[in-house]
Amino acid sequence: MKETLTEKLIRRDAYFKEHYMPGISVDCVVFGFHDSSLKILLNKLFDTDQWSLPGGYLNKTENLNDAANRILKERTGAENIYLNQFKTFGNLQRSEKFFAPYTSDLWFNQRFISISYYALIDYNSVDPQMDEYSEACEWLDVADAPEMMMDHTVIFNEALEQLRKDLNNKPVGSNLLPEKFTMPELQRLYEVILNKELNRGNFYRKMKRYGILDKLNERRTGGAHKSPDLYQFNEYKYAEALKNGLQESW
Amino acid sequence: MKETLTEKLIRRDAYFKEHYMPGISVDCVVFGFHDSSLKILLNKLFDTDQWSLPGGYLNKTENLNDAANRILKERTGAENIYLNQFKTFGNLQRSEKFFAPYTSDLWFNQRFISISYYALIDYNSVDPQMDEYSEACEWLDVADAPEMMMDHTVIFNEALEQLRKDLNNKPVGSNLLPEKFTMPELQRLYEVILNKELNRGNFYRKMKRYGILDKLNERRTGGAHKSPDLYQFNEYKYAEALKNGLQESW
Repeated sequence: MKETLTEKLIRRDAYFKEHYMPGISVDCVVFGFHDSSLKILLNKLFDTDQWSLPGGYLNKTENLNDAANRILKERTGAENIYLNQFKTFGNLQRSEKFFAPYTSDLWFNQRFISISYYALIDYNSVDPQMDEYSEACEWLDVADAPEMMMDHTVIFNEALEQLRKDLNNKPVGSNLLPEKFTMPELQRLYEVILNKELNRGNFYRKMKRYGILDKLNERRTGGAHKSPDLYQFNEYKYAEALKNGLQESW
Repeated sequence: MKETLTEKLIRRDAYFKEHYMPGISVDCVVFGFHDSSLKILLNKLFDTDQWSLPGGYLNKTENLNDAANRILKERTGAENIYLNQFKTFGNLQRSEKFFAPYTSDLWFNQRFISISYYALIDYNSVDPQMDEYSEACEWLDVADAPEMMMDHTVIFNEALEQLRKDLNNKPVGSNLLPEKFTMPELQRLYEVILNKELNRGNFYRKMKRYGILDKLNERRTGGAHKSPDLYQFNEYKYAEALKNGLQESW
């Protein structure tokens, strides 16, 4: 007979208490870009039909950032992922209702703060892995993101807000796009993150002015339209430009 | 006979274990602006001659942000302070060496992560208060900040870096300056935060272009130079401008 979620939580309780720091969880908002859409990687919890951010706990013997990298690797199979710790959530009520049905001394039923990261990941490099409490791990469209358990919807919305602010200060483009891309693909990425349409001519001129792209002697072929030019980020110039932000600076 | 720091830590141990979440500390980098200098508020620990950021713990029955506000109020007497949670520090070795001399089951000798905030505060509204483990609580010049205990120097440097980045996105000016100020005072604030000299004409033109300042029908009198105009932030326009950042935006 299949073990229920509750039975599993009880069976694993002593393990968690022995190995992890109490009260501290780590959650990851994993963004990808595919088919002209911004995607988020979510788990669906066993027996409850609820979606959650991929997450885990801080091992007593590991650094905080190593925990985030380990959790991401467990869920996606990918390493060296771009991770940005953006906020720690610590309201009293953030997880209380969710675990109310379980016995009160259970690991999962204690108060937890969530140290939250967003991750930017090449969609094609990921092999989504369920954790042991989930029945699915899937990429969903950010535009139709489902309600999530606990305060995960709040965490997701703040991650998206932070990603918007970081467009000009962090290597968002190079971490979400494949190595070679067209100008319309880059513009589309900016549009789905900013959630607004941008003028094509203005976008093209700004990108040229920043001088962070190298135009390749290749074109994208096989599409319905005329073959567009391919570009890649100039790693050195991109890094230099991001130091001061991509806008006019002081 | 005066109680030593060690004796005090041992006497208070049970209290901490009963009331606070284990493993979680909250530290505050408190910035003020005075005499043309950027200042930071630091504690000097009893018996050790070491400086530390004002900090404390998360009560089991309070929200995380409420803990930061409570700790700041205890140290400064001030309320409604501008606080920005900027990063959580969680390296394994961050506090280990510091508490090595104490017995291993002591509250203070466990592994702690630090959820760190920076605070912007009107220098004149503060009445620095020592905590029970300190022999001093003082404003020091950021430019000659002393070495601090544990990883507090790292936390301080990252707070300063974040403050620089936030100059165009958060109400830094209005929280560090008195209500009325001169253009040279505003420029000086930007210069000490950015750690570089700015061209007076350019600075004046940019500030005018943003349209976030109201020029008052008053002048600063009594100084050695000719009386400069006084300004204040236009609260509504400042808030609107910060939404998109003060630089050119997409």
